[in-house]
This record gives sequence, structure tokens and C-alpha cells, in this order.
Amino acid sequence: MGLIAMHVLLTYDVETVTREGRRRLRRVAKLCEGCGQRVQLSVFECSVSETQLERLVQALAKSIDPATDSIRLYKISGRRDDVVATLGRDNYVDFDGPLIL
Amino acid sequence: MGLIAMHVLLTYDVETVTREGRRRLRRVAKLCEGCGQRVQLSVFECSVSETQLERLVQALAKSIDPATDSIRLYKISGRRDDVVATLGRDNYVDFDGPLIL
Repeated sequence: MGLIAMHVLLTYDVETVTREGRRRLRRVAKLCEGCGQRVQLSVFECSVSETQLERLVQALAKSIDPATDSIRLYKISGRRDDVVATLGRDNYVDFDGPLIL
Repeated sequence: MGLIAMHVLLTYDVETVTREGRRRLRRVAKLCEGCGQRVQLSVFECSVSETQLERLVQALAKSIDPATDSIRLYKISGRRDDVVATLGRDNYVDFDGPLIL
């Protein structure tokens, strides 16, 4: 397994008009939950190695209908405070940062 | 106005249970449309200067209900092909890339 963890932002749109679409949506959400933090309804921040990312992409590709669904992955680099800004609700938890107890 | 264009990924969740929420959603979508390309239902890729970004953030902050809505902005750096991957539907148009006519 690769040693360098990347920060990846994953966003998805899955068709939910059909029952099959809603099933795909649940599958995609489950795969994302396994590798990152849900920060919005269909947005995840994942810390993954190259190998984990490859596996995730393969599993996602098998789970969606490419004609109707869309998944986008963005590699995020730089210090978190420099590259991420939020307005309103924010339920992100910085597991790597110093814990305040 | 700043000269350096940044690539910013903007994602939003706006509460749509109430009529007021749906109004906020339309306002947020309109502001985003003014500065970038919609790549998913609630995901935009924007090319903006520092000043444009500041203005956008101010306008968005005024448009949302911070208790229920969430907006996230991520600065994307690096060559597009190195940092963005898509699965399934992809309606992004590279306006800066070479045009094939």
C-alpha cells in the first residue's frame, strides 16, 4: 500500500428517480463513508493512499450508471487553512489536528 | 481587481424544505453561475481573481442561513489533468484549452 496520504475531495450526483438509482446512491455513499468524512450531502473529504484511491475509483466505477451518474475527484494540496473555506454549517472534524479536550 | 486567476471548487447544501430555503438555493445558484461552471447539481468550478472571490464569498454569506445551509470553497492548484478525475457523466468544458473545431 502506498505510504503517502493524499487529500481528495469527492463529489457525486447520482440519479434518484428510479429505485435502481437510489440503490446506486446508497452504494456510492457507503463506499465514500469507508474512506472519508462526509462534509455535505454528496461531498466527502478523503485521506487516502494511491492504492486506496485506485481501489475506491474502481469500486465507484462499477457502482454507477455512467450515462446518468457523475463522480468527481479533486486532489487537494496545501495547508488546510490556506485552501479550504466554509460558510454556514460545518461538520468537518480535523482528526489530525491537535485535540482540544 | 487582482490579476491572478485561481481555480476554486465551490460546493453547497442549502435546505430546501421551506419556501425560504428554496429561495436561498436559487440565489446561491445564481451567484455561482455568475462566476463559474456548474459541473454537478451543487458543485461549481470557478476561475476567479482574489477580489472576485472576496465579493462572491460576501454575497454568498449574505444569501444563506448559516444555521441550516453550508457552502465550501476549495482552492485547486496544479495541472488540471493531474488533480481532477471524473467518472460517468462530465459536462465540464475547458474554455482555456485548445479549441477543436
